[in-house]
Amino acid sequence: MFSKIQNDRYLRALRRQPVDRTPVWMMRQAGRYLPEYRAVRQQAGDFMQLCRSSELACEVTLQPLQRFPLDAAILFSDILTIPDAMGLGLYFETGEGPKFERLADTPAAIAALPLPDPVDDLGYVMDAVKLIRHELGGRVPLIGFTGSPWTLATYMVEGGATKSFTKIKKMMFSEPALLHQLLEKLTQAVVLYVNAQIEHGAQSIMIFDTWGGVLTEPCYQAFSLAYMQKILAGIHREYNGEHIPVTLFTKGGGLWLEQIAATGCDGVGLDWTVNIGSARRRIGQHVALQGNMDPATLYASPAQIEAAVQTILKDFGSGPGHVFNLGHGIHPDVDPEHVHAFIEAVHRCSQQVCVER
Amino acid sequence: MFSKIQNDRYLRALRRQPVDRTPVWMMRQAGRYLPEYRAVRQQAGDFMQLCRSSELACEVTLQPLQRFPLDAAILFSDILTIPDAMGLGLYFETGEGPKFERLADTPAAIAALPLPDPVDDLGYVMDAVKLIRHELGGRVPLIGFTGSPWTLATYMVEGGATKSFTKIKKMMFSEPALLHQLLEKLTQAVVLYVNAQIEHGAQSIMIFDTWGGVLTEPCYQAFSLAYMQKILAGIHREYNGEHIPVTLFTKGGGLWLEQIAATGCDGVGLDWTVNIGSARRRIGQHVALQGNMDPATLYASPAQIEAAVQTILKDFGSGPGHVFNLGHGIHPDVDPEHVHAFIEAVHRCSQQVCVER
Repeated sequence: MFSKIQNDRYLRALRRQPVDRTPVWMMRQAGRYLPEYRAVRQQAGDFMQLCRSSELACEVTLQPLQRFPLDAAILFSDILTIPDAMGLGLYFETGEGPKFERLADTPAAIAALPLPDPVDDLGYVMDAVKLIRHELGGRVPLIGFTGSPWTLATYMVEGGATKSFTKIKKMMFSEPALLHQLLEKLTQAVVLYVNAQIEHGAQSIMIFDTWGGVLTEPCYQAFSLAYMQKILAGIHREYNGEHIPVTLFTKGGGLWLEQIAATGCDGVGLDWTVNIGSARRRIGQHVALQGNMDPATLYASPAQIEAAVQTILKDFGSGPGHVFNLGHGIHPDVDPEHVHAFIEAVHRCSQQVCVER
Repeated sequence: MFSKIQNDRYLRALRRQPVDRTPVWMMRQAGRYLPEYRAVRQQAGDFMQLCRSSELACEVTLQPLQRFPLDAAILFSDILTIPDAMGLGLYFETGEGPKFERLADTPAAIAALPLPDPVDDLGYVMDAVKLIRHELGGRVPLIGFTGSPWTLATYMVEGGATKSFTKIKKMMFSEPALLHQLLEKLTQAVVLYVNAQIEHGAQSIMIFDTWGGVLTEPCYQAFSLAYMQKILAGIHREYNGEHIPVTLFTKGGGLWLEQIAATGCDGVGLDWTVNIGSARRRIGQHVALQGNMDPATLYASPAQIEAAVQTILKDFGSGPGHVFNLGHGIHPDVDPEHVHAFIEAVHRCSQQVCVER
């Protein structure tokens, strides 16, 4: 049904198999730093219109691959498509981040949340996945993604982005059973959504736990990690005879890498505050690591970017299981020429490391 | 000159000496959650007017001690008094956080920054320290404080609060020598400022490194920790025959506790993402630990607050060297009754632990 994969470095690295050079992709690689993205975004109108058009979503997904020799494509979409499909009314105000018209902050509101059908209610995402996979023609693998239940819940309870997480933490302490009910429902929705992405062509899955890092260790385990583990147990880990590698990324989760690696995921995403060598020593060899250059490094000169790449490759050391990435999404004001220098540096500098393996 | 100290639990804990119960204070304990604070704040006009009046600063510093049996007072002031005294024009817009009229973001602007004289240019802070120490009458020790050079620099280069730290990270990568020049000047200013606080009556010092946690490990060491270490080497560690304990607190610095503890500080402040038992095992016994209940726990019921306190005391274990605190400043919408329950719980639950020591 789909073309045979040509560049499978990314999938091999997540399976901890030898590669000729370290695969690299970037979180938010389809994004505002690219003028061609901004043009399509303007054409679409608002951000959600762009996500809802499978043709435009496909177009922007492929844009960075036309410029740079990236080793993976990632579906262009938003983590908040699920709460939107649950009827909360997602919208974006310029410069303000995502907001919801309705909240999921009472027993009645949470009980009333429907379980979206991924094809009927989120068909635009599935159409985009299928179209992108076709258009890729096997050049590189396609990564699908979801937000973690905890991360989705923060937006649904707070009504948008927050710095203090006041409402959801109040709920966590005063009505933990209610929060668990919300997280349970989100977990079911995420499993359906991720499985549908895999069935429509996603070859790997990223789970973005953007806000797990604002929790204490026991709360992280109970309210975020436990639900990601349920997702890992519920989704296709093999489809059409292919293993579907899953990467968990908790921003600010550097203290809990051992627990994250013990969930049964294939890869652990690292933000830039973690030393990747220490992470490898702490976790051991049973999972791959993804990351983790500070996105701000792309403001530096190409020579300085290469030095930063070298440091991370050296810290990771020899041996398989490294997917190079930034430690968070690329900043919108980065010069695309610097991105080119970054991608080239990873490929060039890692050849020697990979030969040694 | 000043009254003899009556309750020295806080100072003893930082010296790792036995105490009858674990001392406790709260970051931002003089603050918006108290109606009597809000009344004085309104009377003062804006926030900086409150800081600039030594009488009002003294009044709000003492307010939480009149309500709760806290084991330390902390000077009411702002971390940005130094850049303000350097002429950058600090102001506050409602709900927007601190802002500067002028930036320190060019070689000329940084070279032109004067070194403030703590008595001539920041006399209002020194007057407040002296007055508070007198008014305390030896009941509990007075903590002075400063922002870390890196943290101060973020506001001075960005012009205010930021989520992305774009400008200062651009400077860090493209003009590291310029940033070092700014940090060096700030370090000199902080040493003068902290020494003057000690000379006017501060009995312990907190260094707040609010934004060290946004850096990579090598950048944290070079641009934040190295300058805090210079401060530790430059300030009075003993004054009038009394040891002046210093606590370093890097929010989001949980991965680097060993390096922080190796600076020669007396105490390491922990945010709530760190397990205090793991921190103690990693660091060893040579410094005290301060923290680290999630401030959001104060939204929970008194019984749940007590359970959270018990967990932290149990995780810390027996042995001296614990100053109880929140892992960050208290939220402004917390019920003061819950604060009372928290302070009482620390004292009540720690008696058994302290007897066992």
